[in-house]
Amino acid sequence: MKVKLLTLIVLFAIFATGCNAPDNSSQLIQKYDAISKIMVRNALTNRTGYKWLKDFLKIGPRLSGSPGNFKAIEWIKNKMKEIGLDSVWLQECKVPHWVRGNVEKAWLLNNKGEKIKALHIADLGGSIGTPPKGLTGNVVEVSSFEELKMLGPKAKNKIIFFNEKFDYGEVNTFIAYSKAVKKRVYGAIEAAKVGAKALLIRTVGSSYDNKPHTGNMHYAENVKKIPAAALGAIDSDYLSSVLRHHPDYKIKLKMNCKNLPDTISYNVIGELRGSKFPNEVIVIGGHLDCWDKGVGAHDDGAPALQTLETLDLIKRLNLKPDRTIRCVLFANEENGLNGGKTFGKYAANDKNEKYIAAIESDRGAFTPRGFSVKANKNVLKKIQSWLPVLNNALIDWIKKGGSGADVGQIKNVIASIGYVPDTQRYMDLHHSANDTFDKVHPREMELGTAAIATLVYLISQEGL
Amino acid sequence: MKVKLLTLIVLFAIFATGCNAPDNSSQLIQKYDAISKIMVRNALTNRTGYKWLKDFLKIGPRLSGSPGNFKAIEWIKNKMKEIGLDSVWLQECKVPHWVRGNVEKAWLLNNKGEKIKALHIADLGGSIGTPPKGLTGNVVEVSSFEELKMLGPKAKNKIIFFNEKFDYGEVNTFIAYSKAVKKRVYGAIEAAKVGAKALLIRTVGSSYDNKPHTGNMHYAENVKKIPAAALGAIDSDYLSSVLRHHPDYKIKLKMNCKNLPDTISYNVIGELRGSKFPNEVIVIGGHLDCWDKGVGAHDDGAPALQTLETLDLIKRLNLKPDRTIRCVLFANEENGLNGGKTFGKYAANDKNEKYIAAIESDRGAFTPRGFSVKANKNVLKKIQSWLPVLNNALIDWIKKGGSGADVGQIKNVIASIGYVPDTQRYMDLHHSANDTFDKVHPREMELGTAAIATLVYLISQEGL
Repeated sequence: MKVKLLTLIVLFAIFATGCNAPDNSSQLIQKYDAISKIMVRNALTNRTGYKWLKDFLKIGPRLSGSPGNFKAIEWIKNKMKEIGLDSVWLQECKVPHWVRGNVEKAWLLNNKGEKIKALHIADLGGSIGTPPKGLTGNVVEVSSFEELKMLGPKAKNKIIFFNEKFDYGEVNTFIAYSKAVKKRVYGAIEAAKVGAKALLIRTVGSSYDNKPHTGNMHYAENVKKIPAAALGAIDSDYLSSVLRHHPDYKIKLKMNCKNLPDTISYNVIGELRGSKFPNEVIVIGGHLDCWDKGVGAHDDGAPALQTLETLDLIKRLNLKPDRTIRCVLFANEENGLNGGKTFGKYAANDKNEKYIAAIESDRGAFTPRGFSVKANKNVLKKIQSWLPVLNNALIDWIKKGGSGADVGQIKNVIASIGYVPDTQRYMDLHHSANDTFDKVHPREMELGTAAIATLVYLISQEGL
Repeated sequence: MKVKLLTLIVLFAIFATGCNAPDNSSQLIQKYDAISKIMVRNALTNRTGYKWLKDFLKIGPRLSGSPGNFKAIEWIKNKMKEIGLDSVWLQECKVPHWVRGNVEKAWLLNNKGEKIKALHIADLGGSIGTPPKGLTGNVVEVSSFEELKMLGPKAKNKIIFFNEKFDYGEVNTFIAYSKAVKKRVYGAIEAAKVGAKALLIRTVGSSYDNKPHTGNMHYAENVKKIPAAALGAIDSDYLSSVLRHHPDYKIKLKMNCKNLPDTISYNVIGELRGSKFPNEVIVIGGHLDCWDKGVGAHDDGAPALQTLETLDLIKRLNLKPDRTIRCVLFANEENGLNGGKTFGKYAANDKNEKYIAAIESDRGAFTPRGFSVKANKNVLKKIQSWLPVLNNALIDWIKKGGSGADVGQIKNVIASIGYVPDTQRYMDLHHSANDTFDKVHPREMELGTAAIATLVYLISQEGL
């Protein structure tokens, strides 16, 4: 009963102002304004994606190649069928297969070799383990790559403690992160180059606790592979202070993480076929993999499900998009980007379809702020002209900028777009045990769904 | 050392572009852009207001006339002196003195009069208590004032259960609140008019739990005063479902809250005197009182301290504002507005000073979104021209709109302005036991301080 009334209201909203009326700007705004308001209200009231999220996160961690990854693929596939999409398929891709193992320990030892304190660490993704009995060494603290490179022989056989702090003064936490993350990605290479035998980095995140943030790290050819882990922020300050007084104290590390041979995983793809221009495609998506210390609630469970709920929202409002909307849940954003790359190649070779837009949601599920658009001037201007409609879902701006790691792999697209919610709390959780369901607020998540759905529907009806 | 370097940078930022250069728009933006970025970085890094908040909230609840209210007045006064303001004073005002008491209980009784379940209630502020032994009655559920008014004799001697739900579909939670709150404010009057003996309302808030939100209620002359309380959201659904099957079940209420004679409280006022135009005044403030179920972290502890930290931030950056900046921490926003009214009268009679602007922070301390301005077109336009500077602190818009309950009492002001942060989580906490320190995020609170400080500094230097 409720649904039928809603359908009528939506139909009224579509036709009241005349579908074929000349689309001058204010008429266009008026037409979509009503629909977008219904989307917002429906998303906020039903909380469908939020309910999905609660169930989805019960799978646990979903790192590529892990049992959780395959369960997530099944879950998404089934949900796409349940929604009643026009087609659902899996797209195979090769992914790295790193396993954390069950030993992830660090201790501070005094100069008699006695254990003084257990420290909170998280092995970095891709790291090798230590020898089975562990690895012990003196510690050298640095706070920059310059310092590290200048250590010379002092670093020989030492454990490097890279204690560079997160820049709390930076208003955009993603910029602060991009500065801080270099030590995680390249630290082991540079530490090995100066002869270190292991790397401990200060956790890359904005929370002040002992739940260190993991994340991908790199090795380089012809440079020795050394174990690498992140140390909790509180323990990092503790260690730094101890070392000032006792530079001879040591660290013992015991980690049995390892890299297994690459394995097969899948992008999960589902779409609503366009009723007028089925060969014009709008891609929306996020990634289904996540790091394994938490359950990837904000990175990228909720945002990925926002894009999936977008299709459900369009279906449940009985809207018939003119263009095809294809949701791609990418397999491997966290440690390889092979899901994105595979889809990017597929799109490049896809001669039957025209890729109009690709929208990624991978910056958490906090309150909407804007969209970041990579497109030519005219396309950007067209999307910006829709701001009054998108503002119904609290989108305050549409700016030129990057989109996202996965959809950025689709090169033959007119507009590559990133959904941008508020970032202030995100780096507290990102890649850590803090990234759990209770951190997602239903209203904030659902407003994001409504924002994405509004933009997707505008593109599907108006083209780019 | 750090401070000195900072001072130099700030001075450079002020003078580099030439203080007396013609202030065309882009030069003006450039000049203040550097200062506002320093404000943002300083606030985010030092977290001064956030540290104050932790200490301030240890006082506990601060309802007007309560011991906590007086402790808060002392705390603020001392902090103003510590900051080194040019003058600090108290402004006396009469306030209501309502006391919750130590009995606040409700039970569901079956048709044998046996207690089936204890229910979670919060007495509404201003309510009378029940007789000492409690009050028992049959329950009539309504969901609107229309339904309530139409009850007629059916309501006679009953307990009215006003179970109107919060509108989750409304994107602006303050609008949803303003619809839902009418039953809290006027419910007891209308229930008494149809002969009811008590009122239970569904909690006015967006959290789904059993921590009911309290808040002010009214009685009317010549209408019988009846006890009124809010019932937790979960218990409201429970009660509604029980009543469907057992309309003869009763509620027993036992409340010993009471209204004592009006008492004296104080606005706490501190200011930095303007160096060029000391008689031109910018008022900034929030309220120091709060409801007593939580400790008023978001309502209005953190926002009030944002305005106080604004002065500290200006002082610690060694800025010398041209106009006077006066911080007023109002005594009685929650149940009488007597702090705001007293200051409003004082300002109206203040013939020596010109009130340029009044900025209120009383919508929580979440991430900044905008400023809502009540002023004439030209003034609004001037403030809007500063948006690129304010955007450094994540202010995305400046719109015509209301300011705040307290500063709204200052009628002889050029611009009355409300600081508007994100609203999505606010009504989960507002007036409830959920409103505690852990709900405030340091970055979100400090960005608000930086936003307010930037606007205040712009007004102090550029006038309105």
